[in-house]
Amino acid sequence: MAQLVTLEEVYAAADRIKDTCLRTPLLPAPWAGSGAWLKPESLQPTGAFKLRGATNAVARLDDDQRARGVVTHSSGNHGSALAYAAQRARVRATIVVPYGAPEVKVGLIAQAGAELVRVDPAERVAASAEVAARTGAIEVPPFDHVDVIAGQGTVGLEIAADLPDVETVLVPVGGGGLIAGVAVALRALVPDVRIIGCEPALAGDAAASFAAGHLVAWSDEDTARTVADGLRVPSLGELTWPHIEELVDDVVTVEEDAILAAVCRLAAGSRLVAEASGAVTTAALLTRSDRLPGGRTVVVVSGGNVDPRWYADVVGSGPQG
Amino acid sequence: MAQLVTLEEVYAAADRIKDTCLRTPLLPAPWAGSGAWLKPESLQPTGAFKLRGATNAVARLDDDQRARGVVTHSSGNHGSALAYAAQRARVRATIVVPYGAPEVKVGLIAQAGAELVRVDPAERVAASAEVAARTGAIEVPPFDHVDVIAGQGTVGLEIAADLPDVETVLVPVGGGGLIAGVAVALRALVPDVRIIGCEPALAGDAAASFAAGHLVAWSDEDTARTVADGLRVPSLGELTWPHIEELVDDVVTVEEDAILAAVCRLAAGSRLVAEASGAVTTAALLTRSDRLPGGRTVVVVSGGNVDPRWYADVVGSGPQG
Repeated sequence: MAQLVTLEEVYAAADRIKDTCLRTPLLPAPWAGSGAWLKPESLQPTGAFKLRGATNAVARLDDDQRARGVVTHSSGNHGSALAYAAQRARVRATIVVPYGAPEVKVGLIAQAGAELVRVDPAERVAASAEVAARTGAIEVPPFDHVDVIAGQGTVGLEIAADLPDVETVLVPVGGGGLIAGVAVALRALVPDVRIIGCEPALAGDAAASFAAGHLVAWSDEDTARTVADGLRVPSLGELTWPHIEELVDDVVTVEEDAILAAVCRLAAGSRLVAEASGAVTTAALLTRSDRLPGGRTVVVVSGGNVDPRWYADVVGSGPQG
Repeated sequence: MAQLVTLEEVYAAADRIKDTCLRTPLLPAPWAGSGAWLKPESLQPTGAFKLRGATNAVARLDDDQRARGVVTHSSGNHGSALAYAAQRARVRATIVVPYGAPEVKVGLIAQAGAELVRVDPAERVAASAEVAARTGAIEVPPFDHVDVIAGQGTVGLEIAADLPDVETVLVPVGGGGLIAGVAVALRALVPDVRIIGCEPALAGDAAASFAAGHLVAWSDEDTARTVADGLRVPSLGELTWPHIEELVDDVVTVEEDAILAAVCRLAAGSRLVAEASGAVTTAALLTRSDRLPGGRTVVVVSGGNVDPRWYADVVGSGPQG
């Protein structure tokens, strides 16, 4: 079995990221229940929790690696996070972006001064490896990496510090980097807390893995059906999966209409722009009480990068007020 | 000349409000300039800075006054703030709301368990006084009150603590309670800071007062023209005006289209739902460099309570990305 990330690695990450990442507050959300708080990672400078892991990974480079730069393939928040973290650390970044990626996220990558390489979706892994081989750049994967998981785990440290008697924490699951890191920190600091993964039913590979007790992969075509573009990951990772199997209490799925309604409620109730992937946890809180343990609950709102026209459509046609 | 609120009164307010109000973070906003930070008061539990002043005013009641309850007239954020603060303190609240007030804000008042009295706009002052006379309730005005100004001033304390070398602070001006309190705190703690009030050109009474050197009132009809419903206040107060005259460096005005563009930029760039009144400072930063001193600048985003359909229209038709 793989070696799990340790609490000490998460503490070390917290120290490395503190000048680049926002220490997000907990926001009471009375509209979602008297014991509900939001952890708005959408307020990070790049609009998603991904900045924590990317910043930690870049900070861990030695001088030789820094000179070679970093590369990743990402259609979304990990790409802009790595671009931003590298820029802050004065390290060169190349981001391989598949055609068809959300323009708002591609714009953020370019804004941060990274080199963009646009390829067909099927070629992105190969293109990233090719850049690494040709330039010596260090590949920083989006989730299945110790430094990335440790960085995301700082979300858990902050929850434990701000609400030491938290009873339930809801975390979105795509590749599993965020929930793996959060679970390392929280299981150690608040041993009895219930840690619940949340994902769209249309990209329910993590729930399937959790139920089966082994890693289950879905097809790209299947996961592509959900509106939550950040969670269209066909499978957990070889490293994130053992964390989830060992440390997480349950994985629940939510319907698409619940995700869209949650986007609206987060805007009206807490003045947060949340992307669909960031709203799955709120959707779970509002529609899956059948599977949630309740009590003092923290809902991680993982990101807020939206296409403005899509967002206007959702907010304008959703539940009013 | 009126006695100005003191730094000690603001410190005392900070201690009284700390369990009810959010200590909002400063968010770097690279899209608005390399030295720009946002102070997102939209993240307060009631969606606006008003909760600070209302909470302080309620906390200052003695036992006899607590038993009598509080009353105010407000079409907006002060009403829901007083309702929420009173509910938290187990004090009865009556809010006089004029017909035509934004339904989203009226809903927040009702949610907080306050008694709603709906009247014609012209009768609101008399109706509030009538409730006070009949029930003995204490009137808590929206801005022209020492405890309210001291409460709002805690925004300034937090800015000084988080960015001690701040050079410019932009604050929306309606009745002037927020900028008066912020100016008390900042002028004392960061003596050389430039404190700039921002308001819509269509409700430019504070800029007119500042230019004239005496209190200038506009008509309700004039100020009603701006989209920034929270800033449709015809005049500064007898107490807020001397604070502004004495402590504020300038008052600048912004155009309506700049306000709407700023609402879009706050959503896309920083994932914040801002109401028009909360976006005037961002509008000033983006369009009034002719009048701003520059340097490390904090922009107070004062609130985020929007009608969802209005918001969808603005975000869907504004600058994309």
